[in-house]
Amino acid sequence: MENIGYYNGRTGLIEDMMIPMNDRACYFGDGVYDATCCKNNVIYQIEDHLDRFFNSAGLLRIDLPFTKSELADILNDLVRKVDADEKFVYWQSSRGTAKRNHLFPGTKANLYITITPAPLPDLSKPIKLITVEDTRFLHCNIKTLNLIPSVMAAQQAEEAGCQEAVLHRGDRVTECAHSNVSIIKNGMFITAPTDHLILPGIARMHLIRACKKLCIPVDETPFTLDDLRNADEIIVSSSSKFALSACELDGKPAGGRAPELLRAIQNEVMREFHAYVGA
Amino acid sequence: MENIGYYNGRTGLIEDMMIPMNDRACYFGDGVYDATCCKNNVIYQIEDHLDRFFNSAGLLRIDLPFTKSELADILNDLVRKVDADEKFVYWQSSRGTAKRNHLFPGTKANLYITITPAPLPDLSKPIKLITVEDTRFLHCNIKTLNLIPSVMAAQQAEEAGCQEAVLHRGDRVTECAHSNVSIIKNGMFITAPTDHLILPGIARMHLIRACKKLCIPVDETPFTLDDLRNADEIIVSSSSKFALSACELDGKPAGGRAPELLRAIQNEVMREFHAYVGA
Repeated sequence: MENIGYYNGRTGLIEDMMIPMNDRACYFGDGVYDATCCKNNVIYQIEDHLDRFFNSAGLLRIDLPFTKSELADILNDLVRKVDADEKFVYWQSSRGTAKRNHLFPGTKANLYITITPAPLPDLSKPIKLITVEDTRFLHCNIKTLNLIPSVMAAQQAEEAGCQEAVLHRGDRVTECAHSNVSIIKNGMFITAPTDHLILPGIARMHLIRACKKLCIPVDETPFTLDDLRNADEIIVSSSSKFALSACELDGKPAGGRAPELLRAIQNEVMREFHAYVGA
Repeated sequence: MENIGYYNGRTGLIEDMMIPMNDRACYFGDGVYDATCCKNNVIYQIEDHLDRFFNSAGLLRIDLPFTKSELADILNDLVRKVDADEKFVYWQSSRGTAKRNHLFPGTKANLYITITPAPLPDLSKPIKLITVEDTRFLHCNIKTLNLIPSVMAAQQAEEAGCQEAVLHRGDRVTECAHSNVSIIKNGMFITAPTDHLILPGIARMHLIRACKKLCIPVDETPFTLDDLRNADEIIVSSSSKFALSACELDGKPAGGRAPELLRAIQNEVMREFHAYVGA
Protein backbone atom coordinates (compact mmCIF):
# COMPACT_ATOMS: atom_id res chain seq x y z
CA MET A 1 0.00 0.00 0.00
CA GLU A 2 1.12 3.58 -0.50
CA ASN A 3 0.28 4.39 3.14
CA ILE A 4 -1.76 2.84 5.92
CA GLY A 5 -4.14 4.10 8.55
CA TYR A 6 -5.19 2.00 11.53
CA TYR A 7 -7.92 2.65 14.06
CA ASN A 8 -8.77 0.15 16.80
CA GLY A 9 -8.06 -2.81 14.54
CA ARG A 10 -9.48 -1.46 11.26
CA THR A 11 -7.04 -0.54 8.47
CA GLY A 12 -7.16 1.24 5.11
CA LEU A 13 -5.64 4.10 3.18
CA ILE A 14 -5.33 7.02 5.61
CA GLU A 15 -7.43 9.29 3.40
CA ASP A 16 -10.29 6.74 3.49
CA MET A 17 -10.19 6.01 7.23
CA MET A 18 -12.92 7.36 9.49
CA ILE A 19 -13.05 7.59 13.26
CA PRO A 20 -15.99 8.24 15.60
CA MET A 21 -17.07 11.84 16.03
CA ASN A 22 -17.15 11.08 19.76
CA ASP A 23 -13.44 10.16 20.03
CA ARG A 24 -12.16 12.57 22.70
CA ALA A 25 -9.25 13.46 20.42
CA CYS A 26 -11.77 15.26 18.16
CA TYR A 27 -13.16 17.74 20.67
CA PHE A 28 -10.66 17.94 23.58
CA GLY A 29 -7.41 16.82 21.91
CA ASP A 30 -7.48 14.48 24.93
CA GLY A 31 -4.71 12.11 23.98
CA VAL A 32 -1.00 11.50 23.56
CA TYR A 33 1.15 10.44 20.63
CA ASP A 34 4.60 9.41 19.58
CA ALA A 35 6.36 9.03 16.25
CA THR A 36 9.62 7.93 14.73
CA CYS A 37 11.14 7.00 11.41
CA CYS A 38 11.57 3.58 9.88
CA LYS A 39 14.02 2.12 7.38
CA ASN A 40 14.34 -1.46 6.16
CA ASN A 41 11.09 -2.03 8.06
CA VAL A 42 12.99 -1.41 11.28
CA ILE A 43 11.26 1.17 13.49
CA TYR A 44 14.05 3.33 14.83
CA GLN A 45 14.47 3.29 18.62
CA ILE A 46 11.04 1.77 19.05
CA GLU A 47 11.72 0.87 22.71
CA ASP A 48 12.51 4.49 23.62
CA HIS A 49 9.41 5.73 21.78
CA LEU A 50 7.14 3.16 23.41
CA ASP A 51 8.56 4.07 26.82
CA ARG A 52 7.88 7.76 26.22
CA PHE A 53 4.40 7.06 24.82
CA PHE A 54 3.39 5.02 27.86
CA ASN A 55 4.89 7.69 30.11
CA SER A 56 2.92 10.47 28.37
CA ALA A 57 -0.26 8.41 28.78
CA GLY A 58 0.53 7.76 32.44
CA LEU A 59 1.03 11.47 33.15
CA LEU A 60 -2.46 12.15 31.75
CA ARG A 61 -3.88 9.10 33.53
CA ILE A 62 -4.86 7.44 30.25
CA ASP A 63 -4.93 3.66 30.74
CA LEU A 64 -3.67 2.03 27.58
CA PRO A 65 -5.49 -1.25 26.89
CA PHE A 66 -2.41 -2.93 25.37
CA THR A 67 1.17 -3.64 26.40
CA LYS A 68 4.29 -2.11 24.85
CA SER A 69 5.02 -5.41 23.22
CA GLU A 70 1.50 -5.71 21.77
CA LEU A 71 1.75 -2.19 20.36
CA ALA A 72 5.21 -2.96 18.92
CA ASP A 73 3.75 -6.02 17.18
CA ILE A 74 0.96 -3.94 15.61
CA LEU A 75 3.40 -1.24 14.45
CA ASN A 76 5.87 -3.78 13.06
CA ASP A 77 3.09 -5.52 11.19
CA LEU A 78 1.76 -2.27 9.69
CA VAL A 79 5.09 -0.86 8.50
CA ARG A 80 5.60 -3.97 6.36
CA LYS A 81 2.38 -3.19 4.49
CA VAL A 82 3.61 0.18 3.18
CA ASP A 83 5.75 0.05 0.03
CA ALA A 84 8.59 2.43 0.80
CA ASP A 85 12.05 2.03 2.23
CA GLU A 86 11.92 5.16 4.43
CA LYS A 87 8.74 5.78 6.39
CA PHE A 88 7.28 7.88 9.18
CA VAL A 89 5.50 5.91 11.90
CA TYR A 90 2.96 7.87 13.98
CA TRP A 91 0.58 6.61 16.67
CA GLN A 92 -1.75 8.21 19.19
CA SER A 93 -4.18 7.18 21.89
CA SER A 94 -7.08 9.27 23.10
CA ARG A 95 -8.81 8.69 26.41
CA GLY A 96 -11.78 6.99 24.76
CA THR A 97 -15.00 7.50 22.86
CA ALA A 98 -17.92 9.04 24.71
CA LYS A 99 -20.40 11.89 24.76
CA ARG A 100 -18.54 15.18 25.28
CA ASN A 101 -17.96 15.71 29.01
CA HIS A 102 -14.76 16.93 30.65
CA LEU A 103 -14.82 14.09 33.19
CA PHE A 104 -12.95 10.89 32.38
CA PRO A 105 -15.41 8.67 30.47
CA GLY A 106 -14.40 5.26 31.81
CA THR A 107 -14.29 3.93 28.24
CA LYS A 108 -11.32 2.18 26.62
CA ALA A 109 -8.53 4.30 25.13
CA ASN A 110 -8.37 4.34 21.31
CA LEU A 111 -5.40 3.44 19.16
CA TYR A 112 -4.82 5.43 15.96
CA ILE A 113 -1.80 4.79 13.74
CA THR A 114 -0.57 6.18 10.42
CA ILE A 115 2.42 4.98 8.38
CA THR A 116 3.51 7.19 5.48
CA PRO A 117 6.51 7.22 3.14
CA ALA A 118 8.98 9.89 4.29
CA PRO A 119 12.54 10.33 3.03
CA LEU A 120 15.29 10.66 5.64
CA PRO A 121 16.65 14.18 6.12
CA ASP A 122 19.77 15.54 4.47
CA LEU A 123 21.95 16.62 7.41
CA SER A 124 24.37 18.47 5.17
CA LYS A 125 21.77 21.20 4.55
CA PRO A 126 21.51 23.76 7.34
CA ILE A 127 18.09 25.29 8.00
CA LYS A 128 16.83 28.79 8.75
CA LEU A 129 15.14 29.68 12.03
CA ILE A 130 12.95 32.39 13.47
CA THR A 131 12.31 33.05 17.15
CA VAL A 132 8.79 33.08 18.56
CA GLU A 133 7.58 33.71 22.12
CA ASP A 134 6.68 30.41 23.81
CA THR A 135 3.06 30.73 24.94
CA ARG A 136 2.38 27.02 25.40
CA PHE A 137 1.01 25.30 28.48
CA LEU A 138 3.27 24.06 31.27
CA HIS A 139 3.08 20.38 30.32
CA CYS A 140 5.44 20.40 27.36
CA ASN A 141 7.12 17.30 28.78
CA ILE A 142 4.00 15.34 27.77
CA LYS A 143 3.60 14.57 24.06
CA THR A 144 -0.08 15.53 23.78
CA LEU A 145 -2.47 16.27 20.91
CA ASN A 146 -2.89 19.88 22.14
CA LEU A 147 -0.64 21.38 19.47
CA ILE A 148 -2.15 24.67 18.32
CA PRO A 149 0.77 26.86 19.49
CA SER A 150 3.21 24.57 17.62
CA VAL A 151 1.05 24.76 14.49
CA MET A 152 0.96 28.57 14.66
CA ALA A 153 4.72 28.88 15.25
CA ALA A 154 5.58 26.43 12.44
CA GLN A 155 3.37 28.40 10.06
CA GLN A 156 5.07 31.66 11.12
CA ALA A 157 8.44 30.09 10.32
CA GLU A 158 7.22 28.94 6.91
CA GLU A 159 5.90 32.39 6.07
CA ALA A 160 9.27 33.88 7.02
CA GLY A 161 10.97 31.46 4.62
CA CYS A 162 12.33 29.39 7.52
CA GLN A 163 12.10 25.72 8.48
CA GLU A 164 11.63 25.93 12.24
CA ALA A 165 10.61 28.35 14.98
CA VAL A 166 12.72 28.55 18.14
CA LEU A 167 10.46 29.16 21.13
CA HIS A 168 11.54 31.22 24.12
CA ARG A 169 9.92 32.23 27.41
CA GLY A 170 11.17 35.73 27.82
CA ASP A 171 14.91 35.41 27.37
CA ARG A 172 15.10 31.66 27.95
CA VAL A 173 15.14 29.38 24.91
CA THR A 174 12.95 26.32 25.43
CA GLU A 175 12.67 24.24 22.26
CA CYS A 176 11.27 24.51 18.71
CA ALA A 177 7.75 24.13 17.32
CA HIS A 178 8.40 20.44 16.64
CA SER A 179 12.05 19.84 17.61
CA ASN A 180 14.47 20.38 20.46
CA VAL A 181 17.23 22.93 20.06
CA SER A 182 20.78 22.74 21.43
CA ILE A 183 23.93 24.75 20.84
CA ILE A 184 27.67 24.19 20.62
CA LYS A 185 29.78 26.87 22.29
CA ASN A 186 33.50 26.71 23.01
CA GLY A 187 33.58 22.99 22.33
CA MET A 188 30.69 22.27 24.68
CA PHE A 189 27.22 20.88 23.86
CA ILE A 190 24.58 22.92 25.71
CA THR A 191 20.94 21.85 25.85
CA ALA A 192 18.00 22.80 28.09
CA PRO A 193 17.22 20.38 30.91
CA THR A 194 14.14 18.18 30.52
CA ASP A 195 11.76 20.01 32.84
CA HIS A 196 8.09 20.77 32.12
CA LEU A 197 9.01 23.36 29.47
CA ILE A 198 10.39 20.97 26.84
CA LEU A 199 9.75 17.55 25.43
CA PRO A 200 12.30 14.95 26.52
CA GLY A 201 13.40 14.40 22.93
CA ILE A 202 14.68 10.97 22.03
CA ALA A 203 16.86 12.44 19.27
CA ARG A 204 18.12 14.90 21.92
CA MET A 205 18.97 11.98 24.22
CA HIS A 206 20.88 10.25 21.43
CA LEU A 207 22.69 13.52 20.62
CA ILE A 208 23.85 13.67 24.22
CA ARG A 209 25.05 10.08 23.98
CA ALA A 210 26.88 10.87 20.75
CA CYS A 211 28.62 13.83 22.42
CA LYS A 212 29.67 11.72 25.40
CA LYS A 213 31.05 9.08 23.08
CA LEU A 214 33.00 11.81 21.25
CA CYS A 215 34.23 13.28 24.58
CA ILE A 216 32.37 16.55 23.95
CA PRO A 217 31.30 17.95 27.34
CA VAL A 218 27.50 18.16 27.73
CA ASP A 219 25.89 20.85 29.86
CA GLU A 220 22.15 20.41 30.44
CA THR A 221 21.29 23.94 31.44
CA PRO A 222 18.87 26.60 30.19
CA PHE A 223 20.39 28.98 27.66
CA THR A 224 19.26 32.39 26.42
CA LEU A 225 18.42 34.02 23.10
CA ASP A 226 21.82 35.73 23.23
CA ASP A 227 23.54 32.37 23.75
CA LEU A 228 21.64 31.12 20.71
CA ARG A 229 22.65 34.13 18.59
CA ASN A 230 26.29 33.75 19.60
CA ALA A 231 26.45 29.95 19.41
CA ASP A 232 29.22 28.33 17.40
CA GLU A 233 26.61 25.90 16.04
CA ILE A 234 22.86 25.50 16.52
CA ILE A 235 21.49 21.94 16.38
CA VAL A 236 17.78 21.27 15.83
CA SER A 237 16.90 17.69 16.68
CA SER A 238 13.83 15.52 16.27
CA SER A 239 13.03 11.89 15.63
CA SER A 240 12.37 12.55 11.95
CA LYS A 241 15.13 15.13 11.30
CA PHE A 242 17.83 13.70 13.62
CA ALA A 243 20.24 16.65 13.98
CA LEU A 244 20.00 19.53 11.54
CA SER A 245 22.25 22.56 11.86
CA ALA A 246 21.08 26.14 11.37
CA CYS A 247 22.70 28.89 9.31
CA GLU A 248 20.29 31.73 9.95
CA LEU A 249 18.32 33.10 12.90
CA ASP A 250 15.74 35.86 12.41
CA GLY A 251 17.33 36.79 9.10
CA LYS A 252 20.89 37.05 10.45
CA PRO A 253 23.72 34.52 9.93
CA ALA A 254 24.01 32.04 12.80
CA GLY A 255 26.16 29.04 13.71
CA GLY A 256 28.71 27.73 11.23
CA ARG A 257 31.67 28.34 13.53
CA ALA A 258 32.41 24.77 14.62
CA PRO A 259 31.80 22.74 11.46
CA GLU A 260 34.14 19.84 12.38
CA LEU A 261 32.50 19.31 15.74
CA LEU A 262 29.05 19.54 14.15
CA ARG A 263 29.99 17.04 11.46
CA ALA A 264 31.47 14.63 14.02
CA ILE A 265 28.24 14.70 16.04
CA GLN A 266 26.02 14.31 12.96
CA ASN A 267 28.18 11.42 11.72
CA GLU A 268 27.90 9.63 15.05
CA VAL A 269 24.10 10.15 15.09
CA MET A 270 23.81 8.68 11.59
CA ARG A 271 26.24 5.86 12.37
CA GLU A 272 24.01 4.85 15.29
CA PHE A 273 20.93 5.04 13.05
CA HIS A 274 22.42 2.88 10.31
CA ALA A 275 23.71 0.35 12.82
CA TYR A 276 20.22 0.12 14.37
CA VAL A 277 18.28 -0.30 11.14
CA GLY A 278 20.99 -2.49 9.56
CA ALA A 279 21.55 -0.35 6.48
CA MET B 1 -34.29 12.07 17.01
CA GLU B 2 -32.81 11.64 20.48
CA ASN B 3 -29.69 13.61 19.45
CA ILE B 4 -28.06 14.69 16.23
CA GLY B 5 -24.53 14.82 14.92
CA TYR B 6 -23.59 16.82 11.81
CA TYR B 7 -20.34 16.79 9.87
CA ASN B 8 -19.89 18.81 6.68
CA GLY B 9 -23.48 18.23 5.61
CA ARG B 10 -23.93 14.62 6.77
CA THR B 11 -26.17 13.92 9.77
CA GLY B 12 -26.99 10.99 12.03
CA LEU B 13 -27.06 9.91 15.66
CA ILE B 14 -23.87 11.26 17.23
CA GLU B 15 -22.75 7.81 18.32
CA ASP B 16 -22.99 6.59 14.70
CA MET B 17 -21.24 9.56 13.07
CA MET B 18 -17.71 9.18 11.73
CA ILE B 19 -15.22 11.83 10.66
CA PRO B 20 -12.00 11.51 8.64
CA MET B 21 -8.91 10.35 10.51
CA ASN B 22 -7.12 13.23 8.76
CA ASP B 23 -9.30 15.99 10.24
CA ARG B 24 -6.76 18.26 11.96
CA ALA B 25 -8.95 18.24 15.07
CA CYS B 26 -7.97 14.58 15.56
CA TYR B 27 -4.19 14.98 15.78
CA PHE B 28 -3.51 18.69 16.54
CA GLY B 29 -6.77 19.79 18.18
CA ASP B 30 -6.41 22.47 15.52
CA GLY B 31 -9.82 24.06 15.74
CA VAL B 32 -12.24 26.26 17.66
CA TYR B 33 -15.69 25.72 19.06
CA ASP B 34 -18.61 27.38 20.71
CA ALA B 35 -21.71 26.14 22.51
CA THR B 36 -24.88 27.35 24.15
CA CYS B 37 -28.21 26.09 25.39
CA CYS B 38 -31.53 25.98 23.61
CA LYS B 39 -35.14 26.02 24.78
CA ASN B 40 -38.34 26.13 22.70
CA ASN B 41 -36.01 25.55 19.74
CA VAL B 42 -34.55 29.01 20.35
CA ILE B 43 -30.74 28.96 20.54
CA TYR B 44 -29.87 31.27 23.40
CA GLN B 45 -27.82 34.34 22.45
CA ILE B 46 -26.90 32.79 19.13
CA GLU B 47 -25.59 36.12 17.76
CA ASP B 48 -23.09 36.51 20.63
CA HIS B 49 -21.94 32.91 20.23
CA LEU B 50 -21.52 33.20 16.45
CA ASP B 51 -19.56 36.43 16.94
CA ARG B 52 -17.24 34.74 19.43
CA PHE B 53 -16.87 31.63 17.25
CA PHE B 54 -15.86 33.66 14.21
CA ASN B 55 -13.51 35.70 16.39
CA SER B 56 -11.84 32.54 17.77
CA ALA B 57 -11.41 31.27 14.21
CA GLY B 58 -9.98 34.59 13.08
CA LEU B 59 -7.42 34.64 15.91
CA LEU B 60 -6.18 31.23 14.74
CA ARG B 61 -6.38 32.28 11.07
CA ILE B 62 -8.96 29.61 10.29
CA ASP B 63 -11.05 30.76 7.31
CA LEU B 64 -14.60 29.59 7.83
CA PRO B 65 -16.26 28.64 4.53
CA PHE B 66 -19.71 29.87 5.63
CA THR B 67 -21.25 33.07 6.95
CA LYS B 68 -22.68 33.60 10.43
CA SER B 69 -26.14 33.57 8.93
CA GLU B 70 -25.53 30.31 7.04
CA LEU B 71 -24.25 28.67 10.22
CA ALA B 72 -27.24 30.00 12.18
CA ASP B 73 -29.57 28.44 9.58
CA ILE B 74 -27.84 25.06 9.90
CA LEU B 75 -27.97 25.17 13.72
CA ASN B 76 -31.60 26.29 13.76
CA ASP B 77 -32.53 23.49 11.38
CA LEU B 78 -30.72 20.84 13.44
CA VAL B 79 -32.12 21.79 16.85
CA ARG B 80 -35.65 21.21 15.52
CA LYS B 81 -34.75 17.61 14.73
CA VAL B 82 -33.96 16.70 18.35
CA ASP B 83 -36.96 15.77 20.51
CA ALA B 84 -36.33 17.64 23.74
CA ASP B 85 -37.36 21.00 25.09
CA GLU B 86 -33.98 21.85 26.64
CA LYS B 87 -30.87 21.11 24.58
CA PHE B 88 -27.16 21.78 24.39
CA VAL B 89 -25.94 23.08 21.03
CA TYR B 90 -22.22 22.55 20.30
CA TRP B 91 -20.27 23.29 17.12
CA GLN B 92 -16.61 23.30 16.11
CA SER B 93 -14.48 23.95 13.05
CA SER B 94 -11.05 22.53 12.48
CA ARG B 95 -8.60 23.98 9.99
CA GLY B 96 -9.26 21.23 7.47
CA THR B 97 -8.55 17.65 6.48
CA ALA B 98 -5.07 16.80 5.27
CA LYS B 99 -2.05 14.64 5.86
CA ARG B 100 -0.50 15.49 9.24
CA ASN B 101 1.81 18.50 8.84
CA HIS B 102 2.06 21.48 11.16
CA LEU B 103 1.80 23.93 8.26
CA PHE B 104 -1.63 25.24 7.27
CA PRO B 105 -3.03 22.75 4.75
CA GLY B 106 -4.90 25.12 2.45
CA THR B 107 -7.96 22.85 2.60
CA LYS B 108 -11.46 23.94 3.61
CA ALA B 109 -12.31 24.16 7.32
CA ASN B 110 -14.66 21.46 8.62
CA LEU B 111 -17.97 21.98 10.41
CA TYR B 112 -18.88 19.57 13.20
CA ILE B 113 -22.07 20.00 15.25
CA THR B 114 -23.78 18.05 18.03
CA ILE B 115 -27.19 18.72 19.57
CA THR B 116 -28.04 16.81 22.74
CA PRO B 117 -30.85 17.00 25.30
CA ALA B 118 -29.61 18.84 28.41
CA PRO B 119 -31.79 20.11 31.26
CA LEU B 120 -31.32 23.71 32.36
CA PRO B 121 -29.42 24.16 35.65
CA ASP B 122 -31.03 24.65 39.03
CA LEU B 123 -29.60 27.97 40.22
CA SER B 124 -30.92 27.48 43.74
CA LYS B 125 -28.32 24.75 44.38
CA PRO B 126 -24.86 26.09 45.26
CA ILE B 127 -21.87 24.05 44.12
CA LYS B 128 -18.57 23.03 45.70
CA LEU B 129 -15.21 24.17 44.33
CA ILE B 130 -11.56 23.23 44.56
CA THR B 131 -8.61 25.40 43.54
CA VAL B 132 -6.07 24.16 41.00
CA GLU B 133 -2.94 25.87 39.64
CA ASP B 134 -3.61 27.25 36.14
CA THR B 135 -1.01 25.69 33.84
CA ARG B 136 -2.78 26.40 30.55
CA PHE B 137 -1.38 28.17 27.52
CA LEU B 138 -1.56 31.94 27.11
CA HIS B 139 -4.40 31.92 24.56
CA CYS B 140 -7.30 31.26 26.93
CA ASN B 141 -9.23 34.05 25.22
CA ILE B 142 -9.61 31.72 22.21
CA LYS B 143 -12.14 28.90 22.53
CA THR B 144 -9.95 26.14 21.12
CA LEU B 145 -10.07 22.33 21.08
CA ASN B 146 -6.81 22.18 23.13
CA LEU B 147 -8.54 21.34 26.39
CA ILE B 148 -6.41 18.81 28.27
CA PRO B 149 -5.69 21.06 31.28
CA SER B 150 -9.44 21.76 31.64
CA VAL B 151 -10.17 18.02 31.43
CA MET B 152 -7.58 17.25 34.14
CA ALA B 153 -8.82 20.04 36.46
CA ALA B 154 -12.48 19.06 36.03
CA GLN B 155 -11.62 15.46 36.88
CA GLN B 156 -9.70 16.61 39.98
CA ALA B 157 -12.79 18.54 41.10
CA GLU B 158 -15.00 15.48 40.56
CA GLU B 159 -12.67 13.27 42.58
CA ALA B 160 -12.75 15.82 45.40
CA GLY B 161 -16.56 15.65 45.40
CA CYS B 162 -16.79 19.09 43.80
CA GLN B 163 -18.45 20.47 40.67
CA GLU B 164 -15.82 22.89 39.39
CA ALA B 165 -12.13 23.73 39.72
CA VAL B 166 -11.09 27.37 40.16
CA LEU B 167 -7.82 27.98 38.33
CA HIS B 168 -5.21 30.42 39.58
CA ARG B 169 -1.82 31.59 38.34
CA GLY B 170 0.07 31.93 41.56
CA ASP B 171 -2.17 34.08 43.71
CA ARG B 172 -4.30 35.43 40.87
CA VAL B 173 -7.62 33.73 40.15
CA THR B 174 -8.22 33.35 36.41
CA GLU B 175 -11.34 31.30 35.69
CA CYS B 176 -12.65 27.75 36.14
CA ALA B 177 -12.07 24.54 34.16
CA HIS B 178 -15.15 25.27 32.05
CA SER B 179 -16.67 28.45 33.50
CA ASN B 180 -15.76 31.98 34.47
CA VAL B 181 -15.69 32.89 38.15
CA SER B 182 -16.65 36.21 39.74
CA ILE B 183 -17.23 37.38 43.29
CA ILE B 184 -19.49 39.71 45.20
CA LYS B 185 -17.79 41.72 47.93
CA ASN B 186 -19.23 44.66 49.84
CA GLY B 187 -22.06 45.02 47.36
CA MET B 188 -19.71 45.06 44.36
CA PHE B 189 -19.45 42.54 41.50
CA ILE B 190 -15.76 41.75 40.83
CA THR B 191 -14.64 39.76 37.81
CA ALA B 192 -11.28 39.31 36.06
CA PRO B 193 -10.76 41.43 32.93
CA THR B 194 -10.94 39.64 29.59
CA ASP B 195 -7.24 39.41 28.77
CA HIS B 196 -5.45 36.35 27.35
CA LEU B 197 -5.83 34.44 30.63
CA ILE B 198 -9.58 33.91 30.51
CA LEU B 199 -12.33 33.21 28.03
CA PRO B 200 -14.55 36.21 27.31
CA GLY B 201 -17.58 34.40 28.66
CA ILE B 202 -20.93 35.31 27.19
CA ALA B 203 -22.70 34.36 30.43
CA ARG B 204 -20.13 36.57 32.20
CA MET B 205 -21.02 39.46 29.86
CA HIS B 206 -24.72 39.00 30.58
CA LEU B 207 -23.98 38.84 34.32
CA ILE B 208 -22.25 42.20 34.05
CA ARG B 209 -25.26 43.60 32.19
CA ALA B 210 -27.57 42.20 34.86
CA CYS B 211 -25.50 43.90 37.59
CA LYS B 212 -25.56 47.23 35.76
CA LYS B 213 -29.32 46.97 35.35
CA LEU B 214 -29.59 46.29 39.10
CA CYS B 215 -27.23 49.20 39.90
CA ILE B 216 -24.64 46.84 41.38
CA PRO B 217 -21.17 48.34 40.74
CA VAL B 218 -18.99 46.14 38.49
CA ASP B 219 -15.21 46.09 38.84
CA GLU B 220 -13.37 44.24 36.07
CA THR B 221 -10.09 43.64 37.85
CA PRO B 222 -8.00 40.59 38.74
CA PHE B 223 -8.72 39.19 42.19
CA THR B 224 -6.76 36.83 44.39
CA LEU B 225 -7.31 33.49 46.11
CA ASP B 226 -7.74 35.38 49.38
CA ASP B 227 -10.40 37.58 47.78
CA LEU B 228 -12.13 34.42 46.64
CA ARG B 229 -11.97 32.85 50.12
CA ASN B 230 -13.33 36.00 51.72
CA ALA B 231 -15.95 36.79 49.08
CA ASP B 232 -19.53 37.44 50.17
CA GLU B 233 -20.67 35.32 47.24
CA ILE B 234 -18.85 33.34 44.52
CA ILE B 235 -20.57 33.13 41.13
CA VAL B 236 -19.56 30.50 38.56
CA SER B 237 -20.93 31.34 35.13
CA SER B 238 -21.09 29.55 31.80
CA SER B 239 -23.42 29.33 28.84
CA SER B 240 -24.91 26.08 30.06
CA LYS B 241 -24.98 26.79 33.81
CA PHE B 242 -25.75 30.55 33.68
CA ALA B 243 -24.80 31.71 37.20
CA LEU B 244 -24.30 29.14 39.93
CA SER B 245 -23.24 30.14 43.42
CA ALA B 246 -20.69 28.26 45.51
CA CYS B 247 -20.95 27.17 49.12
CA GLU B 248 -17.58 25.49 49.59
CA LEU B 249 -14.01 26.10 48.50
CA ASP B 250 -11.31 23.50 49.13
CA GLY B 251 -13.47 21.87 51.77
CA LYS B 252 -14.18 25.09 53.71
CA PRO B 253 -17.45 27.07 53.74
CA ALA B 254 -17.45 29.91 51.21
CA GLY B 255 -19.84 32.61 50.02
CA GLY B 256 -23.41 32.71 51.33
CA ARG B 257 -23.02 36.17 52.86
CA ALA B 258 -25.00 38.22 50.33
CA PRO B 259 -27.94 35.95 49.44
CA GLU B 260 -30.34 38.73 48.45
CA LEU B 261 -27.89 40.26 46.02
CA LEU B 262 -27.05 36.85 44.59
CA ARG B 263 -30.73 36.00 44.14
CA ALA B 264 -31.42 39.35 42.46
CA ILE B 265 -28.62 38.76 39.95
CA GLN B 266 -29.68 35.17 39.27
CA ASN B 267 -33.30 36.25 38.84
CA GLU B 268 -32.31 38.91 36.33
CA VAL B 269 -30.14 36.41 34.40
CA MET B 270 -33.05 33.97 34.22
CA ARG B 271 -35.53 36.70 33.36
CA GLU B 272 -33.38 37.66 30.38
CA PHE B 273 -33.13 34.00 29.34
CA HIS B 274 -36.88 33.39 29.50
CA ALA B 275 -37.61 36.61 27.64
CA TYR B 276 -35.15 35.58 24.90
CA VAL B 277 -36.45 32.05 24.42
CA GLY B 278 -40.07 33.07 24.93
CA ALA B 279 -40.84 30.70 27.79
